[in-house]
Parts: sequence; structure tokens; C-alpha cells
Amino acid sequence: MFVILVYDAGEKRVQKFHKACKKFLHWVQLSVFEGELSKAQLEQLKFELKALMKPEEDSVIIYTFRTRHYFSREVMGKKKGDPDSIFV
Amino acid sequence: MFVILVYDAGEKRVQKFHKACKKFLHWVQLSVFEGELSKAQLEQLKFELKALMKPEEDSVIIYTFRTRHYFSREVMGKKKGDPDSIFV
Repeated sequence: MFVILVYDAGEKRVQKFHKACKKFLHWVQLSVFEGELSKAQLEQLKFELKALMKPEEDSVIIYTFRTRHYFSREVMGKKKGDPDSIFV
Repeated sequence: MFVILVYDAGEKRVQKFHKACKKFLHWVQLSVFEGELSKAQLEQLKFELKALMKPEEDSVIIYTFRTRHYFSREVMGKKKGDPDSIFV
């Protein structure tokens, strides 16, 4: 499935969130990641984020799609994230 | 159409971005907005963001969908954004 993940984490945890997400997804903007994941990979990522997060302070929103064909995507301004990402 | 918009703007422009996006969309996380827009409304929002942004520093990614039925959405941790949003 295709995944878009956005997070908002406390300053001390931002780098850890980034590192966990980068293991599974492509970095496309400050705290935005995208990519194709299996159900098992998504569960693993959620497990890792749950272990890192302070649920009373941090927030993660995960959008999942069967395929990439259901949405279009437009970037305005600077392209941030992985320079080698196929999505950027 | 349904829109998910994420931005990363310089500190001086963050509040202006927020204000422009809130005119059209529901605030769901730090720099993440969602909502139903007509094509004309989306064009107006893009026009306003273009006028605010420094394209060499700021970034906006806009995902558009024909309907909300093509994705599922999960929130982990704290629900941020508008307390009255139907999406939060």
C-alpha cells in the first residue's frame, strides 16, 4: 500500500522520529514521509513510533492508499527531503 | 475534491501560511491541513500561498483526491489542530 505519514514531535524526539520513518519511507518535507509499504512494514513502523512517542505531546497521522493512482500531488516552492527520492 | 496540504515555511511566514490555509481547510496538525475544496477554491488558495512564499526557502505539497473514499487515516498520539474539525 502507499503511505503518507506526517508527524509533530517534541524537539528532543524529532531526530528519532525522522530516523525511524527513514528506515521505511522516503522523506519529502520537514516532517512528511511517503512510500510503498507492506502491511507488516507499516505495523513495524507504527510499533517503533509508539515506542518513541509521548502520546500526550506528539502526534502522527498516517494516510494509507491501496495504490498511488488515487491522488495527484503537486509541489510548490522548494523541493525538500531526499534528493534521490523518486517522489521528490 | 479532497485536499491534504502540508507546508514548511520560514519562521516569519508560518503564521501567514497558517492563516491562508485556515480560510479554506481544516487544521489537523502543526503544518497539515485537510478539507473539501472546489477547483476554484484550490486555485485561490494556491494563489495566496504563492504570494506569501519564498520559493527558494518554503515548500508546499498538495495531495488531491476525487473523494475521501480512497484512503484511510489513522492518528497516533495527541490530536492536534481544530478541536471542532470533523476530521480530527
